[in-house]
Amino acid sequence: MILVNGVTSDAIAVTDRGLAYGDGVFRTFAVRGGEPLQWQRHYDRLNRDCATLGIACPGEATLRADLAHLSRSGSDFAVKIIITRGPGARGYAPPDPAQPTTRIVRASALPHYPQDFASRGIRLRLCALRLGFQPALAGIKHLNRLENVLARREWNDADIAEGLLCDTEGNAICGTMTNLFLVERGALFTPALTRCGVAGVTRDRVIDAAARHGVACYVENISYERVMRAGEVWLTNSLVGVWQARELGDRRWATGTLVAHMRQWLDEEGA
Amino acid sequence: MILVNGVTSDAIAVTDRGLAYGDGVFRTFAVRGGEPLQWQRHYDRLNRDCATLGIACPGEATLRADLAHLSRSGSDFAVKIIITRGPGARGYAPPDPAQPTTRIVRASALPHYPQDFASRGIRLRLCALRLGFQPALAGIKHLNRLENVLARREWNDADIAEGLLCDTEGNAICGTMTNLFLVERGALFTPALTRCGVAGVTRDRVIDAAARHGVACYVENISYERVMRAGEVWLTNSLVGVWQARELGDRRWATGTLVAHMRQWLDEEGA
Repeated sequence: MILVNGVTSDAIAVTDRGLAYGDGVFRTFAVRGGEPLQWQRHYDRLNRDCATLGIACPGEATLRADLAHLSRSGSDFAVKIIITRGPGARGYAPPDPAQPTTRIVRASALPHYPQDFASRGIRLRLCALRLGFQPALAGIKHLNRLENVLARREWNDADIAEGLLCDTEGNAICGTMTNLFLVERGALFTPALTRCGVAGVTRDRVIDAAARHGVACYVENISYERVMRAGEVWLTNSLVGVWQARELGDRRWATGTLVAHMRQWLDEEGA
Repeated sequence: MILVNGVTSDAIAVTDRGLAYGDGVFRTFAVRGGEPLQWQRHYDRLNRDCATLGIACPGEATLRADLAHLSRSGSDFAVKIIITRGPGARGYAPPDPAQPTTRIVRASALPHYPQDFASRGIRLRLCALRLGFQPALAGIKHLNRLENVLARREWNDADIAEGLLCDTEGNAICGTMTNLFLVERGALFTPALTRCGVAGVTRDRVIDAAARHGVACYVENISYERVMRAGEVWLTNSLVGVWQARELGDRRWATGTLVAHMRQWLDEEGA
């Protein structure tokens, strides 16, 4: 089921700037028992990303009403919210005065990953595509995602759950749909996202949970070589939670100890 | 008037990957007297850009039929063709098997620019946004255009026709909607587009016309400082043809001599 500006619809205007230019932002998360998980964090990120692009973010109550509407058809599902700058005439200049944004709230089935992705860890591959630097867009979950599409096209082996993306200087940044954490001697490290990458809500949660539980967590540049030497390598997002890598190239990892704690800390946090 | 997959429509599926990820390409050009100008060049570029992204480009006859359909409602208009990878489920992985692409052919009024933009030249400004490097996407007219949107948002003075975009190393690359040429001692220079920028059809035409008329034309990295020292600075695209810059920062240019020749050479070329 899809709501476009609050109305059930499968279609948006061809003139929407989301289509023409990728001029919009999105968020994906789970609804369980009718409750959108980590709603406040997702809304805050959506709001901040909209502000960075100069797009008027719909009010929280409006989006909550959309989610409540979707929950009438089922209590557990994945949600993707897309906010675009709305329809426009030809040309890059945003309409003046600004047009109403387009608000898309789409429910789909929660993804079913093999059990052992969580229990044993995942196979990870190194993508050939390198992320380019664009500080003006770094961290934002915007609709310009061709880099992710090209990277994800590099493999179609269903056994490989995720691809690791490095930037043009050889820093490891993220997976195609996940953020990255390393464990080194009991401390956590996650790449700085000031030049590329997307700042996910689960990344924020892991950083905060680490702080609450006295685990040091550093945000910094991390080379690919350092990933290969790390004690544990994690991939995180709102739908998969925390996956540990068990294989990348010729490197193998045993199941880590901190990863289980982190999952528990996130679970205890509640919605 | 808009045709979506050959059928008159104002809407596309919300699930289209063009919206979700900017997973598609486009071209914009003029139709005059019912004839799409420089059709072969536009189709070839569209085809090549689709191939680079692994999108099946519609056949030439299909797109010509769409254009003929639009021409029944008028003989002179601007056309934008968008080809996306089509609808898809959630997730970056392209559908397997591939879905039919979405083909959007949209007619709109030809833009009316002030007369003196062509006769006296345009006011140009330097954009603060710097283009990031992404060799995998450089040159392609794809739907990930947030850099252009952000750059175009930097000003709303209607007297300023275009903004000059530099890359993160200070090379001048293009305008927000145009390609860039310099004239230095009778020769032409245009930025290499191997790391960022869009290779427009009019850029190809200028390069070819220069060759036909014995004017040397070099494709290379060009610093912003060199733009400021150039004898003439041109901005080109399929709807404006060749505009000369008359003002950029504190630099002023008189009407050049080569620009008039180039316009004539392009006019003589025919459709």
